[in-house]
Amino acid sequence: MAEVIDIEDPADGRVDDFRDLSSADRRPDLPGRKGLVIAEGVVVVQRMLESRFRPSALLGVGKRYEQLAEDLADVDVPYYRADPEVMAEVVGFHLNRGVLAVAPRPESLRVDEVLATARTVAVLEGINDHENLGSMFRNAAGLGADAILFGDRCADPLYRRAVRVSMGHVLRVPFAQLPTWPDGLELLRAGGFQIIALTPNPAAVNLATAMTGQRVALLLGAEGPGLTEEAMAATDIRARIPMSPGTDSLNVATAAAMAFYERVRLS
Amino acid sequence: MAEVIDIEDPADGRVDDFRDLSSADRRPDLPGRKGLVIAEGVVVVQRMLESRFRPSALLGVGKRYEQLAEDLADVDVPYYRADPEVMAEVVGFHLNRGVLAVAPRPESLRVDEVLATARTVAVLEGINDHENLGSMFRNAAGLGADAILFGDRCADPLYRRAVRVSMGHVLRVPFAQLPTWPDGLELLRAGGFQIIALTPNPAAVNLATAMTGQRVALLLGAEGPGLTEEAMAATDIRARIPMSPGTDSLNVATAAAMAFYERVRLS
Repeated sequence: MAEVIDIEDPADGRVDDFRDLSSADRRPDLPGRKGLVIAEGVVVVQRMLESRFRPSALLGVGKRYEQLAEDLADVDVPYYRADPEVMAEVVGFHLNRGVLAVAPRPESLRVDEVLATARTVAVLEGINDHENLGSMFRNAAGLGADAILFGDRCADPLYRRAVRVSMGHVLRVPFAQLPTWPDGLELLRAGGFQIIALTPNPAAVNLATAMTGQRVALLLGAEGPGLTEEAMAATDIRARIPMSPGTDSLNVATAAAMAFYERVRLS
Repeated sequence: MAEVIDIEDPADGRVDDFRDLSSADRRPDLPGRKGLVIAEGVVVVQRMLESRFRPSALLGVGKRYEQLAEDLADVDVPYYRADPEVMAEVVGFHLNRGVLAVAPRPESLRVDEVLATARTVAVLEGINDHENLGSMFRNAAGLGADAILFGDRCADPLYRRAVRVSMGHVLRVPFAQLPTWPDGLELLRAGGFQIIALTPNPAAVNLATAMTGQRVALLLGAEGPGLTEEAMAATDIRARIPMSPGTDSLNVATAAAMAFYERVRLS
């Protein structure tokens, strides 16, 4: 059962892991620093509690503790209870979600672990926008994609903003880093995955007819530059979403959602 | 041909329409104020120039004028040219897109105008988030939806943030306000549209099999509350996107994209 500890002094060292969250140079959630993973709000904290991420402490107002009491019944961590003003001074801004949980980063999952039973996975190259990453995980969770693999030049999915935009699903949808790029795609090919590049190129095969594999890996690049030629060349097929003339490509997380949807649309 | 006028004094009254864009109480793009529509960046300005929105002036740096010179060849409006610092003082923040165009609001389109040749339309209830609205228009443009209709309690699609997030597609995808709600849906029924409520309810019909009409109108409500019962009751069928257990509903613009995609997936 979580122990409730009242915090009255914003300078209290026990809440240092929650301090100055939006101050870029002191933020505890950046890789290379403490590397902490931060969950914000009741729903995301609940998802963290159900995940492989084990919180070391929570900071929140009394009302949020009441909402989380059941979830915290078997969890042996301190709940630092503070009023909203003290919390705002610690965190550095007014947090209207009213509760935070902080967890150390667990060991990374291995590629073979995340692929073991996967049927549909996304493989990302150059996705360096935390909001797009967060949306990608939310869409993967909602539409039944099983894992996300990181190729090259992607942002940190455990960054606070990505966790929040994903609604906590970065804590649930397994992800792993490919050891090399694009050669690491061979791990997928060896696992029987059909490797599909998603591209706005009108000469590509229609997405709906391209995805014929039992197991499918969808390669997605950043909006604008798209996938590199090296990555494209390592795939089995190039697929397009039917787009209207004179429009841009879709947002990358939305494009991924179309492909995930295509895999489950009749289920 | 646009006339280039150099602005050296940030207080120059000729650029008042571009002043203090992020200061909530002085912002010129709010309804009830000047009601101006603002396009930011070369691509969105180009879309405005191709749209029914007729800019009355542009403000930008010299380099952006060069990029737009061809588009502005037949446009008789002033291009207020300023260096980035002067521009930042006028606008109230540093605008890294480097160019703005401002247009008065044209007369609203009528429902019958936007429906005339439409095959797929979205009808929105309670969508009051500008970012979601912008994404909705971007997805509609990309995936060939023909129009957006506003039911009840939606935010202003011509708000600056919505224009930006839509990448200018609010200026291209026609939209209109239904005169009454939900009775106004009868205008769609009279036009032969199949009226479909999108809902996370697992008891609803699968989206892929629900959309049987030649003409389809998709009703979408806000994330969280969803559609009101009154709106639901006025539809022909309730449809669901297949979702994984234990996840939230999708973002409303993403959910709309699935439905738009379903309409064009084999094209």
